[in-house]
Amino acid sequence: MSEYQYPINDILFSLLCVAHIERLTPYLEDEVDSDLLDAILGEAGKLSEQVIAPINASGDKDGSRVEQGEVIEAKGFKEAFKAYSQGGWIGLSGDPKYGGQGLPSYIATAVNEGVQAANLSFSLCPLLSLGAIEAISLHASDELKNRYLPKMLAGEWAGTMNLTESAAGSDLAAISCKATPDGDVFRIKGQKIFITWGDHQMSDNIIHLVLARLPGAPEGVKGISLFIVPKFLLNEQGELSERNDVQVVSVEHKMGIHASPTCVMSFGDKEGAVGYLVGRENEGIKAMFTMMNNARQGVGLQGLAISERAYQQALDYAKERKQGMNASRTERAAIIEHPDVLRMLMTMKSQIDAMRSLVYVAAVENDLSHLSTGEQQKQSIARTALYTPIVKGWITEQAQEITSLAIQVHGGMGFIEETGVAQHARDARILPIYEGTNGIQAIDLIGRKLHSDKGEAMMSLLAEIESELVQWQESTFSTQVEKVRVVLIQAQKATQYCLLAMEKNPVLGTGLAYSYMMLMGYLIGAWLQLRALDACHSGQGQLDETQKRSWEHSVAFYCDHLLSRSSSHFISIEHGQSSVEGLDANSFIR
Amino acid sequence: MSEYQYPINDILFSLLCVAHIERLTPYLEDEVDSDLLDAILGEAGKLSEQVIAPINASGDKDGSRVEQGEVIEAKGFKEAFKAYSQGGWIGLSGDPKYGGQGLPSYIATAVNEGVQAANLSFSLCPLLSLGAIEAISLHASDELKNRYLPKMLAGEWAGTMNLTESAAGSDLAAISCKATPDGDVFRIKGQKIFITWGDHQMSDNIIHLVLARLPGAPEGVKGISLFIVPKFLLNEQGELSERNDVQVVSVEHKMGIHASPTCVMSFGDKEGAVGYLVGRENEGIKAMFTMMNNARQGVGLQGLAISERAYQQALDYAKERKQGMNASRTERAAIIEHPDVLRMLMTMKSQIDAMRSLVYVAAVENDLSHLSTGEQQKQSIARTALYTPIVKGWITEQAQEITSLAIQVHGGMGFIEETGVAQHARDARILPIYEGTNGIQAIDLIGRKLHSDKGEAMMSLLAEIESELVQWQESTFSTQVEKVRVVLIQAQKATQYCLLAMEKNPVLGTGLAYSYMMLMGYLIGAWLQLRALDACHSGQGQLDETQKRSWEHSVAFYCDHLLSRSSSHFISIEHGQSSVEGLDANSFIR
Repeated sequence: MSEYQYPINDILFSLLCVAHIERLTPYLEDEVDSDLLDAILGEAGKLSEQVIAPINASGDKDGSRVEQGEVIEAKGFKEAFKAYSQGGWIGLSGDPKYGGQGLPSYIATAVNEGVQAANLSFSLCPLLSLGAIEAISLHASDELKNRYLPKMLAGEWAGTMNLTESAAGSDLAAISCKATPDGDVFRIKGQKIFITWGDHQMSDNIIHLVLARLPGAPEGVKGISLFIVPKFLLNEQGELSERNDVQVVSVEHKMGIHASPTCVMSFGDKEGAVGYLVGRENEGIKAMFTMMNNARQGVGLQGLAISERAYQQALDYAKERKQGMNASRTERAAIIEHPDVLRMLMTMKSQIDAMRSLVYVAAVENDLSHLSTGEQQKQSIARTALYTPIVKGWITEQAQEITSLAIQVHGGMGFIEETGVAQHARDARILPIYEGTNGIQAIDLIGRKLHSDKGEAMMSLLAEIESELVQWQESTFSTQVEKVRVVLIQAQKATQYCLLAMEKNPVLGTGLAYSYMMLMGYLIGAWLQLRALDACHSGQGQLDETQKRSWEHSVAFYCDHLLSRSSSHFISIEHGQSSVEGLDANSFIR
Repeated sequence: MSEYQYPINDILFSLLCVAHIERLTPYLEDEVDSDLLDAILGEAGKLSEQVIAPINASGDKDGSRVEQGEVIEAKGFKEAFKAYSQGGWIGLSGDPKYGGQGLPSYIATAVNEGVQAANLSFSLCPLLSLGAIEAISLHASDELKNRYLPKMLAGEWAGTMNLTESAAGSDLAAISCKATPDGDVFRIKGQKIFITWGDHQMSDNIIHLVLARLPGAPEGVKGISLFIVPKFLLNEQGELSERNDVQVVSVEHKMGIHASPTCVMSFGDKEGAVGYLVGRENEGIKAMFTMMNNARQGVGLQGLAISERAYQQALDYAKERKQGMNASRTERAAIIEHPDVLRMLMTMKSQIDAMRSLVYVAAVENDLSHLSTGEQQKQSIARTALYTPIVKGWITEQAQEITSLAIQVHGGMGFIEETGVAQHARDARILPIYEGTNGIQAIDLIGRKLHSDKGEAMMSLLAEIESELVQWQESTFSTQVEKVRVVLIQAQKATQYCLLAMEKNPVLGTGLAYSYMMLMGYLIGAWLQLRALDACHSGQGQLDETQKRSWEHSVAFYCDHLLSRSSSHFISIEHGQSSVEGLDANSFIR
């Protein structure tokens, strides 16, 4: 099986030459220079390649199991988690006051690309912990922060997010889990499902963040509060004390991410699980939403990461596997010599290049939205809000195609589990579903992001793209600039069309949402591919001739073969609304 | 879990109103009237729904295993195979001289849609048997036919196809398995891999068809011969006698079709397996190619079948599952009320409608190619050759999207194996790979089918589409006719472009093949959707108003949202050749 190589060159190029991390410099106390970045990412790459990747296939095979009410995770995961925690990776962008290293979070993004590519199942445990850390950091009292954050940032305690119930998936308004005041604390009762890493033996304690309803709370999303429910309660000194009334009921048998235990959790089977209110009563959903950009961009990153992993494996195989004759029919050819295999590999690569640019551009914007001030902050908040559903939705859709192509390059061997490439496709299949399905992302984009501000943030993005295209129109790649301009015009029209449709009917208008999200993804991908090409040509990133040529191929292929998909989405938006609007359940009766 | 319903109405409509089975009437001894068809398909539907579907999920879970050198198949499969055989389904289109029923093979296609949808793993055993039956019927001596066909057509003995070796997958020229003359028979030695249903306990004997090389045979595909190698040898009376020297080595652990044992087979570990030559020496590949249309169209049919199965399950779930509020915000909505879910379901359905039309149009053409004579036969042979790679390639690509959408409609539940919908996507993933990868299909289309006859057969197809469009241009659906005409013009241009590219360089030209195949698939799908709509409007098929409306929605959606994908493939062909031609292994170095 091919071994994962952390693509440090591509990541550094994206950060330095496409996402322009120097935009953050004015807002940082300590500058992150490229030597520091190189050193951090070099270490992260080693950890991913040498510690976390080797337990990916075995974790898929073994999965996890419940024994006497405890989840036993796959072999080797505990040791890997220890190495990961002790390396200080969880606290990388955490608050120094609680033991974090206070680095901008794009660095954590770049580190996580490696961890997620190496082992998606494993990566979910620290990722969910980070979500819990963020919720506590942003919304909990100082007392709660002091009690929980240092251990969590050190990776001694893990964290989980408990939102979903069997009747409340995309629709969190339907949450029915109950919280009852009991002195200073609350008693939590109810069942949660789909709880990622809901239990395990990798850390000494597990801090569950749980959404529940207080007595007499309003119906719907405005009556839900957020609680800390630790697996082990703490004594006054903050040391581990008795077991809380929370239990894992079972772990799901899933299509992929087998080593990530997806748990049914039961709170309060006996006297009620002790919980501590985080933030204000009835504002739990609001608290969750403040973390949404990070979490959703994090899933987009997973789409990039697993695509890269699958691509590397396909590329290695295509160079080794011999079938058929070479073009001059003199000897047997490696299959990478066949044009149709080259087409598949470049379909993967050129999309990955575009996806990576988008991931890091959005990550830097997200950092700006937190670190900058005034007008810049306002703009960055709006822009981050816009990028987020596209990062999550568009990238995880591409990941389906790319991981499937990786199987296809392997032919029959791709379908055999021991080859290891099918795992990437099975693992990737969760990405368009969790953290808000891609349908929800698309509706978020067309509704909360586009319709709510009457398109202002989107127009500003399209104007920025336009002004960069103008800068490049006399360049050596002006033909490609023209191709992107055609799509920009489509995007401008589509934006107007969607605004009108949402104005007219914000329910029916959502029938256009998916196409709009995909169109924007392809456009932004193309824009950033051109930015990368411009950086190559202007000598940024110190690339050698082979590397430059590889970028040229990637961008040319993207503009010729992938960007054109936007036309199809544009036609759907411009001419297809009536054929969606007319549909109802009867349309499917034969 | 939702139960499979054999879509008999849709199948009959496709056969009668789109594929026009009356085209075959002049060439049939006994007419197949619609009552007979209805009766046969009604029984087939019951068998699929009641006998074969219920063991699909359990088969996926249990898989098969090797015990003491024998494959033990999943529970219930033996009984189902017995019911299937005893129902006479294997011999449906077999030669009456050997116990077959002599019905046209499109009926077997319609029957198999149900069997494959119900249980893809199960369906592969009779399918491979049919392949072996066909090879023997077309190429073996009368003596061999007499000895093997009656038992095989009765389903008492199964058959397999042994082509692939570890170094010979798409590239059959590399086959190295050996056959040595030994008196009247041959001794076969060598290993074969990926042998579907290579061993099992469902039938009393297994008749392996094996490709191997005779001593001194020419290199490459022109030195390969075809042999019958039975698991149990026959005595002079044709009764089962001693065990032949063929053994199953292992079964593969695969992403899907778990209940179909994919075997490594070893021939001649001891004295050499006894084999009987089928057809002439060194003409084994030619013999295989005469079966190619059936086998490849059969895989396209699998793509249709599993898509239908996945779609039905998604539709059932979307009607039951409640999330969010209805449009007037008065009560909780079934998710089918949300426009984005309607979009997903109609994306599935409208493609399935187009795929089904293509499957049955191609099946009837295939029958014509065998049964008709003179000019009609010549045309039908050429047309069938053209349809085959599109049926296999385009339909199995669509099946990936459709089975994935079925998961997506289920949200988080889709990723849980017990829901059963993930299995369809896992099972479907083999379809673009086996029986010639879709890359091979595309190259077959652009090379052996298009380039070889300088586009004659393709022009004839495009002319037929054009003339039907002309007939419909004054119809109530003229807007849609115009949309299809735009794509027809693209297809005409793309055909010229591909012919030129293949003329210039038949290796590099194949870089266009995949896009060409997909473009043709979408065009043919649209053409046949219009034909279905025309049939509805002209009162064919006795549809009620709801059924007619459902067809109208399907066709409108197809023309608005799916047909436009052809533009993207057209742009790839017209403008993108240089960005494929320039690629080589160095393009991927960073």
